Amino acid sequence: MKALELIIKKREGQSLSVEEINFLISKYDKGLIPDYQIAAFLMAVYFQGLNSKETAALTAALAESGEMLDLSPLGKLVADKHSSGGVGDKTTLVLAPLVAAAGVPVAKVSGRGLGFTGGTVDKLESIPGFSAELPLERFIELVKDNNLAIMAQTERMTPADKKLYALRDVTGTVENISLIAASIMSKKIAAGAGAILLDVKTGQGSFMKTREEAFHLAETMFRIGKEMGRKIISVVTDMNQPLGFAVGNALEVKEAISILKGEGPPDAEKLCIILGGYLLALADKVRNPEEGQAELRKLLDNGAALEKFKQMISSQGGNVQCVDDFSLLPQAKYIEVIKAPKAGYIREIDTKRVGKAAATLGAGRSYKEEEIDPSVGILLKQKVGDEVLEGDILAHIHGNKEDLLQTACKDLLNAFTISDEKPEELPLVYGVVPPFPC
Amino acid sequence: MKALELIIKKREGQSLSVEEINFLISKYDKGLIPDYQIAAFLMAVYFQGLNSKETAALTAALAESGEMLDLSPLGKLVADKHSSGGVGDKTTLVLAPLVAAAGVPVAKVSGRGLGFTGGTVDKLESIPGFSAELPLERFIELVKDNNLAIMAQTERMTPADKKLYALRDVTGTVENISLIAASIMSKKIAAGAGAILLDVKTGQGSFMKTREEAFHLAETMFRIGKEMGRKIISVVTDMNQPLGFAVGNALEVKEAISILKGEGPPDAEKLCIILGGYLLALADKVRNPEEGQAELRKLLDNGAALEKFKQMISSQGGNVQCVDDFSLLPQAKYIEVIKAPKAGYIREIDTKRVGKAAATLGAGRSYKEEEIDPSVGILLKQKVGDEVLEGDILAHIHGNKEDLLQTACKDLLNAFTISDEKPEELPLVYGVVPPFPC
Repeated sequence: MKALELIIKKREGQSLSVEEINFLISKYDKGLIPDYQIAAFLMAVYFQGLNSKETAALTAALAESGEMLDLSPLGKLVADKHSSGGVGDKTTLVLAPLVAAAGVPVAKVSGRGLGFTGGTVDKLESIPGFSAELPLERFIELVKDNNLAIMAQTERMTPADKKLYALRDVTGTVENISLIAASIMSKKIAAGAGAILLDVKTGQGSFMKTREEAFHLAETMFRIGKEMGRKIISVVTDMNQPLGFAVGNALEVKEAISILKGEGPPDAEKLCIILGGYLLALADKVRNPEEGQAELRKLLDNGAALEKFKQMISSQGGNVQCVDDFSLLPQAKYIEVIKAPKAGYIREIDTKRVGKAAATLGAGRSYKEEEIDPSVGILLKQKVGDEVLEGDILAHIHGNKEDLLQTACKDLLNAFTISDEKPEELPLVYGVVPPFPC
Repeated sequence: MKALELIIKKREGQSLSVEEINFLISKYDKGLIPDYQIAAFLMAVYFQGLNSKETAALTAALAESGEMLDLSPLGKLVADKHSSGGVGDKTTLVLAPLVAAAGVPVAKVSGRGLGFTGGTVDKLESIPGFSAELPLERFIELVKDNNLAIMAQTERMTPADKKLYALRDVTGTVENISLIAASIMSKKIAAGAGAILLDVKTGQGSFMKTREEAFHLAETMFRIGKEMGRKIISVVTDMNQPLGFAVGNALEVKEAISILKGEGPPDAEKLCIILGGYLLALADKVRNPEEGQAELRKLLDNGAALEKFKQMISSQGGNVQCVDDFSLLPQAKYIEVIKAPKAGYIREIDTKRVGKAAATLGAGRSYKEEEIDPSVGILLKQKVGDEVLEGDILAHIHGNKEDLLQTACKDLLNAFTISDEKPEELPLVYGVVPPFPC
C-alpha cells in the first residue's frame, strides 16, 4: 500500500477501505508518511468527501492513536457531553452536575483548545484550587464515588488528531464536515463514555453558520457514534446571540452557579434542562426527554444539582466557598459600561464580535501556550428582543488593562443593532438527530 | 500575503493575481513556504483549475526562478521545438538540422528526464565523444556559427519547476493540464527561443490518452506562449504506435541519420517534414507551411540537412564517422527476434508496452541518477496495417543481459495484436493550434 495511490484514489472520488484509512493515519502519526502527502490527501477529501464508513474509520484510527479510557470498571452506562462551541456556552458546568445528581455517571474529558474564551476546564480552573489535571485512576474513582468528574484531555489521548488538526489548520482543510466530525468524535470515543450528547451550535456566533451545515455535522457525528456502538444524540441549538449573559471564564462560572441556584438567565437554564432531558433518556434513566426535564427541574429546585457541583469542586481541590461568595473568584481591576446610543429594540447582537471583544480582554487563547485571564469578560445586560431607552446599559466589560478595555468597549458597542421594531424571538433548539426516541 | 489565504482562495474557486502566484512560487522556491502548503494548493488547483492568466503567471514564475537564456545577441528569430513525449520519437534529431539547414537558427535546450528511453540529449550522447553539456557562451556561439546547437538543461535553469514537479509526483497532482503546460512552457521560456513548435502526442503511447486532452494541452500551451510574446504553434500528432521502427538511444540515432539520408521510415520522415514546414513558416522563413515542406524536402534530397547534422556532431565533440559507419555506435551483445504467432494484419501495437520493454532492456531512466544503456532497444519490423505470415519477424530486440532480454521479448510479443481484417490507417497529425496562419 502506498500513500500516493490512496491520494489518487480519493482524488478520483473512490472510497477507501478501513485498512487504507488506518494505514494513512497510523503511518502519518508515526512520521512514516510526510505532511505533504497528507496535505494533498486532505484537500482531495475536501473536494471528494468521505462516506459514513470512511468517516467512522478515520474517527477510530484517530481515537486509537493514543490512550483510550476504559470506563467498564464503573459497570454502568456513563454519559458525556460535547458542544461544537459558542460564545457564553457554560452549559457543561450546569449540565454535568445536574445529570450526575439524577444518578447518571458523568465522565467528562475536555480539551483546553483555542477560542474566544477558555473551555470548560479553563472556566472551572478559575475557581481557586480547582484542578482538572487528574491522574486517570483518580478520574475514574471520582466518577465511581460522585457520579461526576471533569478531566483535561491528556497529551497521550488522540495524538494523531492533534497532528492532523495542526496540518488542516495551515493547509486550508479545516472546513469539511467529515473531518470536523471525525476530529470531535475521536476524542469522544477515546474518552470512553457510552452515552453521548452532542450540542451542535448554529448561527453567526458558531462554526456552523447555516442550519443546513449544522444538521449535516449533527447527522455525521450521530452516524459515527452509531457505527461505533455508542448511544448518541445530536441537538442543533441556536448561537445567534451569546448564551445567558456572561462571556468570560470566572464570569461564566458565576452564572453557572446562579443557574444551579435557580437564579440564572432563563435561556441558559432552559437549554440545560432540555439537553439534560435528552441525556437522561439516552442513558435509560427516564422513559422520555420530557420526563427527564421534569426530573431535572426538581433537582435544580431542591438544590441537589448545586450540591453535586459543590462536591465536584471540593473533590477536585477547589475552594467550595466560592459558590456562596463570588468575591473569592478572580475579579477584574476595571469595569466599564457601554450604553444604548438610542432607544429601541435589541435587534441583533453580533456574537462573533462579542467573542472577539472577550478575546481582546484576554479571556481566550489564540495559541496553545497562551495564558488565559480568568477574571476578564463581558456581562451583557440585554438580550435580543429587549427594549431599551437611550443611555440604558447594554453591557459591563470587565478588564485588567485599560487600553484593551477601551478597544473591547468600542468593538462591543458595534456588536449591537438597535431598531424600532421588535424582532422575532430566537429559538433555542432547531432540532434533534435522530428524532427522539432513537 | 499568506500562503494559507491563497490556498483557501483557490480552494473556493477564485483566481489568483500574478503577484499572488509569484509570491507562492518564489517563497516556495526559497523554502519559505513548506511543501505541505504547496501540496494542498496543488490539489486545490487540480480541482479548481487555473485560468489562462494564472497559468501564464505560473509559467513565468517558474521560468524566472533560475537562469534565463538571452538569445538576443543572435539578432534573429531563433527556433525551438518540444515534444510532449512518445515512444520512438526521434523527431528532434532530424528536425533540428533540417530547419537549421533552411537558415533558421535552432537553439535547443533539452532535459534528460525520465522515460522509456532517454531524451534527445541522451540519444545524441550515444555518439562517441558527443557532449550536450555546453557552457552557455559556447552554446550561443555555436548557434551563431552553425545555426544549430543542442544543450542539456542545466541545474540552474527553472529550479522551481524541478522542485514543484518532484512534489506533484508524490502528491497525486501530476495530471492537470494547466500544471503540465506551465511546467513544459517554463522550460521553453527560460530557453529563450522566439519561435516555438510544440509536438503534442496523443494515443496509448503518450501522456495524453485522448485527443480531447491533447488539444486542451496544445491550446493551453499555445495561449501561454502568446501571453508571453512568443511565436508559437502546437501540433497534435499520433502516438498509437511507435514513430518509425527504432526505440532505444543508439538505434534511434541510426534511424534519424537514415532519415537524413533519405532512407528512413516514411512515417517518421513525413512527420519531420510536416513539423519543419510549420516551424519555417512560424519563423517567417517561408510564406506558408507547404512552401516550407517543399524547401525541407529539397534539403533532405541534396544532403544539406545531413551535412548540418554532421557539423553539429563534430562541433559538439562527436565522432562524425558514425554517420557513415553505424558499427562505431554502441552495439548490444545480443539480438533476439520475435515472430508472428499467426498470419494476418498488425491491428495494434501496444505502444506503452513497447516502451516498457525498451525500459526493461535499460534504454530509459526510472530515477534521475539511473544510467542509460545507449546500445539496447527495439527495432520493429512491422507497423500497424502491415500484413504478416505466421513466423514473420515482428521485431529485433537488442539487449546486453539475457534475462532482461527474455522478459522484454515476452512483453513485446504481447504488445502485438494480429487480426484477419486490415485495420484503418493511423493518421500522423490530428490538428494544429491555432489553425495556420496564426
